[in-house]
Amino acid sequence: VERLFDGVREFRDNVFPERREQFEQLAKAQNPRILFITCADSRVVPEMITQTEPGELFVCRNIGNIVPAYGEMMGGVSAVVEYAVVALGVTDIVVCGHSNCGAMAGLIRGDEALNKMPTVRSWLRNAHAARSVVEVLHPELDGDDKIQALVEQNVVTQLQHLGTHPTVAAGVASGKLELHGWVYDIETGAIHLHDAAQGRMVPFEESQGNQALKRKAST
Amino acid sequence: VERLFDGVREFRDNVFPERREQFEQLAKAQNPRILFITCADSRVVPEMITQTEPGELFVCRNIGNIVPAYGEMMGGVSAVVEYAVVALGVTDIVVCGHSNCGAMAGLIRGDEALNKMPTVRSWLRNAHAARSVVEVLHPELDGDDKIQALVEQNVVTQLQHLGTHPTVAAGVASGKLELHGWVYDIETGAIHLHDAAQGRMVPFEESQGNQALKRKAST
Amino acid sequence: VERLFDGVREFRDNVFPERREQFEQLAKAQNPRILFITCADSRVVPEMITQTEPGELFVCRNIGNIVPAYGEMMGGVSAVVEYAVVALGVTDIVVCGHSNCGAMAGLIRGDEALNKMPTVRSWLRNAHAARSVVEVLHPELDGDDKIQALVEQNVVTQLQHLGTHPTVAAGVASGKLELHGWVYDIETGAIHLHDAAQGRMVPFEESQGNQALKRKAST
Amino acid sequence: VERLFDGVREFRDNVFPERREQFEQLAKAQNPRILFITCADSRVVPEMITQTEPGELFVCRNIGNIVPAYGEMMGGVSAVVEYAVVALGVTDIVVCGHSNCGAMAGLIRGDEALNKMPTVRSWLRNAHAARSVVEVLHPELDGDDKIQALVEQNVVTQLQHLGTHPTVAAGVASGKLELHGWVYDIETGAIHLHDAAQGRMVPFEESQGNQALKRKAST
Amino acid sequence: VERLFDGVREFRDNVFPERREQFEQLAKAQNPRILFITCADSRVVPEMITQTEPGELFVCRNIGNIVPAYGEMMGGVSAVVEYAVVALGVTDIVVCGHSNCGAMAGLIRGDEALNKMPTVRSWLRNAHAARSVVEVLHPELDGDDKIQALVEQNVVTQLQHLGTHPTVAAGVASGKLELHGWVYDIETGAIHLHDAAQGRMVPFEESQGNQALKRKAST
Amino acid sequence: VERLFDGVREFRDNVFPERREQFEQLAKAQNPRILFITCADSRVVPEMITQTEPGELFVCRNIGNIVPAYGEMMGGVSAVVEYAVVALGVTDIVVCGHSNCGAMAGLIRGDEALNKMPTVRSWLRNAHAARSVVEVLHPELDGDDKIQALVEQNVVTQLQHLGTHPTVAAGVASGKLELHGWVYDIETGAIHLHDAAQGRMVPFEESQGNQALKRKAST
Ligand SMILES: [Zn+2]
Ligand SMILES: [Zn+2]
Ligand SMILES: [Zn+2]
Ligand SMILES: [Zn+2]
Ligand SMILES: [Zn+2]
Ligand SMILES: [Zn+2]
Repeated sequence: VERLFDGVREFRDNVFPERREQFEQLAKAQNPRILFITCADSRVVPEMITQTEPGELFVCRNIGNIVPAYGEMMGGVSAVVEYAVVALGVTDIVVCGHSNCGAMAGLIRGDEALNKMPTVRSWLRNAHAARSVVEVLHPELDGDDKIQALVEQNVVTQLQHLGTHPTVAAGVASGKLELHGWVYDIETGAIHLHDAAQGRMVPFEESQGNQALKRKAST
Repeated sequence: VERLFDGVREFRDNVFPERREQFEQLAKAQNPRILFITCADSRVVPEMITQTEPGELFVCRNIGNIVPAYGEMMGGVSAVVEYAVVALGVTDIVVCGHSNCGAMAGLIRGDEALNKMPTVRSWLRNAHAARSVVEVLHPELDGDDKIQALVEQNVVTQLQHLGTHPTVAAGVASGKLELHGWVYDIETGAIHLHDAAQGRMVPFEESQGNQALKRKAST
Repeated sequence: VERLFDGVREFRDNVFPERREQFEQLAKAQNPRILFITCADSRVVPEMITQTEPGELFVCRNIGNIVPAYGEMMGGVSAVVEYAVVALGVTDIVVCGHSNCGAMAGLIRGDEALNKMPTVRSWLRNAHAARSVVEVLHPELDGDDKIQALVEQNVVTQLQHLGTHPTVAAGVASGKLELHGWVYDIETGAIHLHDAAQGRMVPFEESQGNQALKRKAST
Repeated sequence: VERLFDGVREFRDNVFPERREQFEQLAKAQNPRILFITCADSRVVPEMITQTEPGELFVCRNIGNIVPAYGEMMGGVSAVVEYAVVALGVTDIVVCGHSNCGAMAGLIRGDEALNKMPTVRSWLRNAHAARSVVEVLHPELDGDDKIQALVEQNVVTQLQHLGTHPTVAAGVASGKLELHGWVYDIETGAIHLHDAAQGRMVPFEESQGNQALKRKAST
Repeated sequence: VERLFDGVREFRDNVFPERREQFEQLAKAQNPRILFITCADSRVVPEMITQTEPGELFVCRNIGNIVPAYGEMMGGVSAVVEYAVVALGVTDIVVCGHSNCGAMAGLIRGDEALNKMPTVRSWLRNAHAARSVVEVLHPELDGDDKIQALVEQNVVTQLQHLGTHPTVAAGVASGKLELHGWVYDIETGAIHLHDAAQGRMVPFEESQGNQALKRKAST
Repeated sequence: VERLFDGVREFRDNVFPERREQFEQLAKAQNPRILFITCADSRVVPEMITQTEPGELFVCRNIGNIVPAYGEMMGGVSAVVEYAVVALGVTDIVVCGHSNCGAMAGLIRGDEALNKMPTVRSWLRNAHAARSVVEVLHPELDGDDKIQALVEQNVVTQLQHLGTHPTVAAGVASGKLELHGWVYDIETGAIHLHDAAQGRMVPFEESQGNQALKRKAST
């Protein structure tokens, strides 16, 4: 942890002074336009892969970039979504999965390790629909390919869950809110986007013209 | 959201190439030593204020940097904690609050805005103990000072909640895991640390000799 | 209740004898192909409006033809869905709303009567997303038109909820299961179907060519 | 599903027109006097076995005609009960089980199939008290006889659960509401009624004089 | 609290020595035959009013001597019941209410004080059925009489809840377990028993011949 | 149970008359200063081991003297704590474990018996943190010594849980409320107290000067 303290010192002495003005302006309020939901994985740094500044991304991070569907037991992610839409009025929500996700790997392989992590196992029930779909659609896959398929399908499933939240459903219906599904590849730095029209992930370039998942509330 | 796509392009074209080797090494596994739990607030960028690299911080972000106590309804934060300790074997957990936190402000002021956000209000019940303590200990405070007092007390409360998780309690008892309570000041870039011995937040410098909250399991 | 006993006697003495053979064949097992989810409303008789025989429809009836999204608190409707797909292998699920639905009326009008029915009010949270969408899309509506709009949107919302159940998601992805959204009009006997392509309810005739809601799992 | 559409067409073209007047009268409101709770089983058609018309029975159908006891996690069945008693003021509630019930069979046999249906298994916990009683009272039974014993005991158990709901308890205490336990035999069309005084199911004829389960709130 | 320490000293120095043999025999195991469920009220001392010795009563005490019905959220009282029946094999369960019960008073009067105690208010939902019955059966009562009526009805309601627990239902059905409803009067020391046959509380003497509530599982 | 009725008669005829005045004074209200939370075990009689009179101890008894942490699913123990602090204004809360506790023994040994008691097993999750600590700190222990270590650690864990309740946290912070951890030894009648400063249980005598666990809210 000593390394952490060195970093804090470095930030205070060398990084912050150069940004003093920026932070002084931010000190009294935040006004992010984007809610970014991604995995807790240490290799995924939202502000780096989007090259955004402090104040731009409202960030939720949990195991497997999951958004439980709206229901009776509302927890932390649902609170983030509600706060982002109602209090902050964000215009976009990105759900960002990533390659080599340990949670997705454990889920699709049925890792015994999950037996020692009952809370994680229970949490990943929110990705069961994605797993069921992958097993039905891609019985031929295994290993990393199967994990990658789940990573991608899981992003779609979590977008569907997002749509069950009343504030999100209303925002999308009114056109004030757009939902985006991304997958970040750690090894190449590439980001693929979910293209609703094609029903699949496409390279960032290809989806540029129509990058947002425009989900009509009535669909 | 166009700005976000520009950022992604910038990352891919200019940032990633310089770090290609680093990311290629990270592509197959992560091995972070630290779990960093902080607020979803857009102005708090964990990797920036600790000057850490991708792969170093396992990050959980939610409204109010909250850790629900261990109990019957385990959710996303509990899953992160379990995964970090059991699967990753982290050695340190930092709970990091911050100045001007909208969640803490809403809670201590009893904002009517919370009536429109029932899920957020319910989530913040996990900070009620902190609020009760501030109201008893600091009846003389109001405005920003009262918010700041809650920000600080909330970090202490969440550390106590952390300690109710079996994996954390065992880690702390065995000396393999240390818990840290931080408060980041957006305006000045300063970080204060919770000093268990003194029972209060102290400037980073002062706490250096004994920076970790060494909570004996038997205390 | 005397009337009920007369009916039972009538059934036993006059109706059953004519169908004896049919019932003897059914006595040992059921093999319905369709799960029909509709409101508890006394005016909606599933077997009458579909002119089906005993043994054809597996039926779930509750307040507001609701299907809670898949999550942590699974209840009776989720059990019906799971049983229908896994144990019975149904090929179609119909969610059927109806005109003049008391539950939808109470929800959209914010009836004070709901204050005396806390369990009903809580149950109808599962239709909040539909209400939010109607309020955003149709601010000009009121009275019966607004109720009717909610009845229709609620069917769409419950279809989305259905899709979050792993067994349903897998069935739809594999093409073995089709989901249908219907609205039954009590006054005219007409049934409208949800047309996913058009994103709206259409008269039964118009949707005949493509009556099923073919929701691709990857959408 | 084509068959279903044929039925809908048949209803619209041939059945509805003959009942047009009836339905037009029903179009603006319902006023059922009876809440009928039965299994989702496709062979049990409430309106047929009671020879009732649209508008007469408020119907709840779920796996195993279950009524969870009043408690902290109120769901769909509890909402139906509350709505029927408070909003509609029904005078009678019938809980109707049936022979050859797949849910009861699975529960008493401990079917492995239930392992693939965790939600169903969890739902059937509401019938565990009935199962425990059957195992204690009828250790000599097996096969269909044991299933039938559970079907009957389960009706009694669900009547007891009904009695824990405040609105039902008050209705029964005031004499405004009567509870009835029925078992419908698919093969013979016979209905047996639970006779509280005798503590057992009796043929419909025998119970005629005292057909209602008159459960004094103070008993 | 000094008084408490004096008591502990008194026990150790003067009371324990006289009972040393008794306690040494008890040190290795307990074998109570009776589960006694009563209120946390400081004026109700189970071992005193039954003149029993250490080792005789397994005791559960909570606000309002409540037993939540068997359901999805099982808590501490359900655990006591299960342990008493399965692990200890008790032969009798007594639910003992008492005069001047603060919880029942607060519930029937709708005390505003309950607004400051949300957890207590929620807990008392388990006595709502009793309250509903009292309000229907005894609209003429008020003040202490109404509270006393609720105290008595609440005991009946909790006995009904007890009967929903599978282990209890089986025990009662097999005749190995008897349930008893008592009300203790603090002012006079009198205990009234619930007489199931008469459907009311009777003085201890009167019920002697048939003191146990013999609830047939099939009733 | 006949023995119980003899005891009740004995109390009424011989014990109560001598205390008539005391009980008449208590009949209208209680004013206990201490909340005493202990195990349901029949050998632990709170009023005897503290030599207190009716009216002095508000008592909560459950399996394993457990206090679930404050969270979303508040139950009976949380209601007792809230009522004791808010309505009664107690000044001290004692959590009292005891030697040879069956619940702690079952938990640390992983008894198969717990498989037949799913509700008990679930309830004991609230003592998992204590078990994890004992297994880490005392791997060399087994048998009764290990059980005793868990009994002691469990008291500490439950004190930590107590501290998560807002009303308790505020009471401790203001100095109006003290928390005490005790372990009662059935065989010797000795009571050990948890000494926060030393982080261990000490004989009653040794802790006299500083007997209370003075937990600063900010620790
Ligand atoms: Zn991941
Ligand atoms: Zn914040
Ligand atoms: Zn309806
Ligand atoms: Zn059935
Ligand atoms: Zn009381
Ligand atoms: Zn014990």
